[in-house]
Amino acid sequence: MNAKRILLSSFLLISSLCSTTLVAQDLPSWSNTDARQQLTAFVETVTKEGAGFVEQSKRIAVFDNDGTLWAEQPMYFQLAFALDRLKATQDKHPEWKTQEPFKSVLAGDLKTALSSHENIAKIVFASHSGMSQEEFQQVVKDWITTATHPKTGRKYTDMVYQPMLEVLDYLRANGFKTFIVSGGGIDFLRVWAEQVYGIPPEQVVGTRVKKEFMLNADGGAQIMRQAAIDFVNDKEGKPIGIDNHIGRRPLIAFGNSDGDLAMLQYTMAGEGKRLAVYIHHTDKGREWAYDRESHIGTFDKGLDYATEHKKDGWILVDMAKDWKVVFPEVE
Amino acid sequence: MNAKRILLSSFLLISSLCSTTLVAQDLPSWSNTDARQQLTAFVETVTKEGAGFVEQSKRIAVFDNDGTLWAEQPMYFQLAFALDRLKATQDKHPEWKTQEPFKSVLAGDLKTALSSHENIAKIVFASHSGMSQEEFQQVVKDWITTATHPKTGRKYTDMVYQPMLEVLDYLRANGFKTFIVSGGGIDFLRVWAEQVYGIPPEQVVGTRVKKEFMLNADGGAQIMRQAAIDFVNDKEGKPIGIDNHIGRRPLIAFGNSDGDLAMLQYTMAGEGKRLAVYIHHTDKGREWAYDRESHIGTFDKGLDYATEHKKDGWILVDMAKDWKVVFPEVE
Repeated sequence: MNAKRILLSSFLLISSLCSTTLVAQDLPSWSNTDARQQLTAFVETVTKEGAGFVEQSKRIAVFDNDGTLWAEQPMYFQLAFALDRLKATQDKHPEWKTQEPFKSVLAGDLKTALSSHENIAKIVFASHSGMSQEEFQQVVKDWITTATHPKTGRKYTDMVYQPMLEVLDYLRANGFKTFIVSGGGIDFLRVWAEQVYGIPPEQVVGTRVKKEFMLNADGGAQIMRQAAIDFVNDKEGKPIGIDNHIGRRPLIAFGNSDGDLAMLQYTMAGEGKRLAVYIHHTDKGREWAYDRESHIGTFDKGLDYATEHKKDGWILVDMAKDWKVVFPEVE
Repeated sequence: MNAKRILLSSFLLISSLCSTTLVAQDLPSWSNTDARQQLTAFVETVTKEGAGFVEQSKRIAVFDNDGTLWAEQPMYFQLAFALDRLKATQDKHPEWKTQEPFKSVLAGDLKTALSSHENIAKIVFASHSGMSQEEFQQVVKDWITTATHPKTGRKYTDMVYQPMLEVLDYLRANGFKTFIVSGGGIDFLRVWAEQVYGIPPEQVVGTRVKKEFMLNADGGAQIMRQAAIDFVNDKEGKPIGIDNHIGRRPLIAFGNSDGDLAMLQYTMAGEGKRLAVYIHHTDKGREWAYDRESHIGTFDKGLDYATEHKKDGWILVDMAKDWKVVFPEVE
């Protein structure tokens, strides 16, 4: 027991040394502006013994994905997956040649194909359901390792934001547990989030399809994906998703659109000091510049709210000004 | 970077030493019978480099709660909480004096009060909804720290199984992540699971009521609990709950009733070697003896299935024979 205690204390000593080491070299891709200073000042306050100290188990940080951890233009990457998937499986569905929206997808007429919520739902269900979880995971894995972005030619997993990868490392080095809280599909994200962000499946919260447990005669058993929505993890759904999956109010929340506003408000309404960070897409040269008028990642109410509440600890990150680098270097 | 790498490697070295230390003194309350030997043999196989090795991130262990981690007789402890809660709040509800099932609850006539699913639902909703998450957590905290078991006089948190607490420690020392997957209420469990089992809120899966996000004029924001069921995490619901919360098929699953059968079958149907453990309540002297005929923790189909599949790695724990101790010592 005594030996164990000695081992455990050196274990703790070394882990604290490790985090100090990492903290010393944190956030190299961030310019030394207010945004970076507010973030690091907050983390120092909650990790140092003293008035603002927060015990490690309560250091929960939540991140939206599309537009916050990776890019979302010219269309949500998961929608690109859905469209590619329809093309790849069209031989099994001759009926698509005459059925909308599939007909337009196969003809490359995205304007018609994506012209209504009904159409998009049909495209998503046709590409995301009617198979087991394991089959779906394999399909996503195959796509994510080969598909490339239409504008940059990069793999989608190289369209992640280098400064945000550094924030994830920095927060974990300071004892935070990092979660994705996305309007995107939970099972789509879980396939690659661990490898790309270091976030395991059990720390991914997202939109879900209905599922059914299937027991085979031979003793096999799997989860089958249904063509129906079980939960939409967006807007007011995000605080609910956080409560159901995490069960604690976050200490820090990152987002980029109006769909994240409720999550950031929920976070900031918790006891003690909290931090809400909005990534503002202002960088037309290195990425995209969009906010109020954009259909993807609409940032209007949230932009007003964050501007109004800067004094209350809301941070508005100006991509063009606050980030030295946007995307990671690729070999 | 180099300094960091040295620190990290010693970090890993020491954590492996720690787990070895713990493994050496594991499971003291378990008799040295087949059950204990099969469990430790399995854990050694998946943790030692070699054919059966499983990387740490995939070492997921799931545990039912009622009847598996703590007792469930003479009634589910959460139902005792609900009944106590009604008595404690009756002054605010004069209408209960004439309304069933509340009238019978207050008169101490449990036979009538609990005579139908409708009645039980009314009792649960009246005691578990119509308040914010924070309010509910406080109510549960107050109850769990003071209420005592009618037969033993112990606090309910002292009605946990010492051999199972040792299994939780043993598996965590061997790199497993431990989750509760309960038919009970997720928010009821999360209040005390971390202190009692070392399982944080984000690793608790359970039955949920519907919730609503509420934003106040003053900027306050909370999750309100509704009087409706959102998800029942029992029977075929358990594999779904595991998939939605954890996103990986468990390597080990523990249960005690037919409500856990689907979870254990789902676990065993995964690739490679897996382990399913059923706790059989055979100890009338130290605890309770019940299975096929019991309304609480009915163990009939599961008992047949586990007996039939012993050769496939299903373990049937005989409480009376396999456990030296049932409950922890209390100061």
